[in-house]
Amino acid sequence: MVLGLGTGSTAAFAVAEIGALLASGKLSGIVGVPTSKRTFEQATSLGIPLSTLDDHPVIDLAIDGADEVDPDLNLVKGRGGALLREKMVEAASGKFVVVVDETKLVTGLGGSGLAMPVEVVQFCWKHNQVRLQDLFNEEGCEAKLRLNEDGKPYVTDNSNYIVDLYFKTPIKDALGAGKEIAALEGVVEHGLFLNMATSVIIAGSDGVSVKTKF
Amino acid sequence: MVLGLGTGSTAAFAVAEIGALLASGKLSGIVGVPTSKRTFEQATSLGIPLSTLDDHPVIDLAIDGADEVDPDLNLVKGRGGALLREKMVEAASGKFVVVVDETKLVTGLGGSGLAMPVEVVQFCWKHNQVRLQDLFNEEGCEAKLRLNEDGKPYVTDNSNYIVDLYFKTPIKDALGAGKEIAALEGVVEHGLFLNMATSVIIAGSDGVSVKTKF
Repeated sequence: MVLGLGTGSTAAFAVAEIGALLASGKLSGIVGVPTSKRTFEQATSLGIPLSTLDDHPVIDLAIDGADEVDPDLNLVKGRGGALLREKMVEAASGKFVVVVDETKLVTGLGGSGLAMPVEVVQFCWKHNQVRLQDLFNEEGCEAKLRLNEDGKPYVTDNSNYIVDLYFKTPIKDALGAGKEIAALEGVVEHGLFLNMATSVIIAGSDGVSVKTKF
Repeated sequence: MVLGLGTGSTAAFAVAEIGALLASGKLSGIVGVPTSKRTFEQATSLGIPLSTLDDHPVIDLAIDGADEVDPDLNLVKGRGGALLREKMVEAASGKFVVVVDETKLVTGLGGSGLAMPVEVVQFCWKHNQVRLQDLFNEEGCEAKLRLNEDGKPYVTDNSNYIVDLYFKTPIKDALGAGKEIAALEGVVEHGLFLNMATSVIIAGSDGVSVKTKF
């Protein structure tokens, strides 16, 4: 079984559990495809056999967290900065299971008021920052270059920058927005993961529930 | 006037001429926006005042060469490797004038049998090479990673790789193809420049002709 291994604080628990199950012999015959350098390092340290999309272009199941989940199981992802590799791996996955706590549920994407990331090439990133903000005049949007703690631009695993979009009201037409963002020259990927998740596991104060897309 | 400065052997003649006109005083009040590090260096050496899309997001006129021109003035560009920056600058240009010799005219894009470049992130480029080739089964397509003379992968100004597509027959639906290519995760840009050129200047054995789009 080929497993896509997500990135972030939630995904790290799943990767740790997979490592433990392998070590105990309860799980075997697994090959993992990590979605970031961080996850690669964690999985390697746990002895999980790893591969890449180049060698395993079809993935059976991917497990990852998300920053927002809407009622149709559309997602915002990438606050951890790994959106491009996550999307590449998860788009190649037959099943894509998302694990979140109930604070991540929104009525519309962008509704949390937190970042919706867009990965852009470094070249003329300000030009794209302005164009991205202009796309969402209706929603009220502030576009900010993501910085490290030292004030320098955050650089992704793919040597790009991230422009974070902060919305005042949820995105009205996420599918249309995704297409408009992707059409901007110099945009490499965006954090709208639409029609990708097949199930979402939600940890709530009343226990765990599962939503599945049919 | 803000001028987009193209990249490649043909564009280099235009940049040299602009430099000469400025030096002679016949031209003034020009700011150039270069589309590659090479053009930046050439223009700097000629004393052409330069800026960027960040500071000049609206360009009056861009001048560049092309690898193929079809009857509707759609183009293949990027054999010189600068497709992303060229597309960013030329998409922001009110007028985009293309200069070619008549050997670049094709009845359908891809019809020259030479490379149609796609810029991809380095991560899992083989996965995208396979997916790109698969998109064009009908046309007969060979997808090859672009290499330097030393056999190492060619790296773009944006730290990405280029997968060159070689078609046996012209692309049937260039607009559809462009959308399908752009939708692949990890594709940064492609060399189909559609509905962008406003004029094409063609040097032929019988002299120079101009085609303009209305």
